[in-house]
Amino acid sequence: MAGPVSEGRRRARDAAAGHATGRRVLVVTVSDGVAAGTRQDASGQGLAVRLSELGYEVDRAVVADDRPAIAQLLAASDGYVLVITTGGTGLTPRDVTPQATKEILDYEIPGLAELMRASGARSTPFSYLSRSVAGVRDGRLIVNVPGSPRGALESLAALEPVLEHALETLAGPFEHKAEGSGSGADLSRTD
Amino acid sequence: MAGPVSEGRRRARDAAAGHATGRRVLVVTVSDGVAAGTRQDASGQGLAVRLSELGYEVDRAVVADDRPAIAQLLAASDGYVLVITTGGTGLTPRDVTPQATKEILDYEIPGLAELMRASGARSTPFSYLSRSVAGVRDGRLIVNVPGSPRGALESLAALEPVLEHALETLAGPFEHKAEGSGSGADLSRTD
Amino acid sequence: MAGPVSEGRRRARDAAAGHATGRRVLVVTVSDGVAAGTRQDASGQGLAVRLSELGYEVDRAVVADDRPAIAQLLAASDGYVLVITTGGTGLTPRDVTPQATKEILDYEIPGLAELMRASGARSTPFSYLSRSVAGVRDGRLIVNVPGSPRGALESLAALEPVLEHALETLAGPFEHKAEGSGSGADLSRTD
Repeated sequence: MAGPVSEGRRRARDAAAGHATGRRVLVVTVSDGVAAGTRQDASGQGLAVRLSELGYEVDRAVVADDRPAIAQLLAASDGYVLVITTGGTGLTPRDVTPQATKEILDYEIPGLAELMRASGARSTPFSYLSRSVAGVRDGRLIVNVPGSPRGALESLAALEPVLEHALETLAGPFEHKAEGSGSGADLSRTD
Repeated sequence: MAGPVSEGRRRARDAAAGHATGRRVLVVTVSDGVAAGTRQDASGQGLAVRLSELGYEVDRAVVADDRPAIAQLLAASDGYVLVITTGGTGLTPRDVTPQATKEILDYEIPGLAELMRASGARSTPFSYLSRSVAGVRDGRLIVNVPGSPRGALESLAALEPVLEHALETLAGPFEHKAEGSGSGADLSRTD
Repeated sequence: MAGPVSEGRRRARDAAAGHATGRRVLVVTVSDGVAAGTRQDASGQGLAVRLSELGYEVDRAVVADDRPAIAQLLAASDGYVLVITTGGTGLTPRDVTPQATKEILDYEIPGLAELMRASGARSTPFSYLSRSVAGVRDGRLIVNVPGSPRGALESLAALEPVLEHALETLAGPFEHKAEGSGSGADLSRTD
């Protein structure tokens, strides 16, 4: 019962605040094989299913392991509150997703990448080999997760405890000066 | 009894080494609201109290959430061995403390930010949303902590086990070549 | 018995793939004192012994705490699958190994530095003061570890669970498009 009530409260408050409900998410699969149609997109599919369960409206895109193409797609992803890429975070020269992402971010949130790697290590130490980055571009959160279905879903699971709070913070309002001194008692404030 | 004795030894050694006792710390509150006088500075106050307990001489400064102003203040903070900023490390476009700090650092110490985030997660996973950075400028340690009183003090608590060692290292002397081969037995050496 | 069989399989596969067996490692000691002959190189020696135990062919080099000299040596370390530097990762202005390393890396692998610092903290919180970086240059893995013998060996120990997988990944082949859709079941794939 708590979920729907909480969701209803949030939508009511969002409407009152005059901005969109902010539930649109884009899942971007970065893979030459998927782009060429020779490989199934299990990771993108898995992320979309889980994000739908979490209440987001999910769109999907596919792009080859091509740095300019990835950067262009991410830079043009207006209208989403969250963009999650899967694939291209490994060690090889073909893995260019983190570089493309850094290129278009306004600023990084290094802790989200640290959190995904540290959490993933409970399953496999190889999580530390992911070069995933996360950050903000024009007010939307952009996060890389690995290309393996397990790595992708474990990374999303690691983010879940902070995801809604991050998106609410990014939705604004941003005026620190509008906060009263009472905000000193807001234990969840992290800025 | 151990504290005063240890302090006495340190001061004697510092004096013998010919450099200042190095206990001056600057706490910088980064907040539009505090700068405008419309918000109380609970975090800056809390940090100052704790740092005084730790034996430091604490000065305080306040600056708005303005990147050039923050960078200028940090760059001009000569005479302090440690500068701790509180505020402006969150996700919004108004949070510019990490960017301003990076701009004036000679080099970062990424592990201190990792340590603060990982330690903070024992209280709240939101600690991973802090974009705090830490590093060195002209021999002084500069560290960002979050703007919430709890986040600020927990970050300082996370640093305490390494803070004195870091400041002693930064106080010099720096000549690696002056060290004998016996330093191989110095278990605390981390360079 | 598993070790030799596995090694035999790998060598056979490597030979079939037409590239070198890839076991050559360079240990670089960064130290003014060692370069000048006034300090023993306990860390470089310890790393070489352990890497030999792990089955690598180890060469060694020594360079002063000089940023251009370190960068030049690392950039010219062709023919090695792994280059490990020891020393110069601390807080002082004389510690320039991370800066020199970043300068010549094609891309960083931030998780390896996070892993070394977090693992080291089980022995000493000072591990968080290491500014070690890791990354890839022309297909070879380059990793900084601290200059203390204990810090150097603990960092290598932290890397061991992922090292062979990282080197195999870097050895290629790199064509993601060559992978069948069945790779979705490869739980160890981390890109």
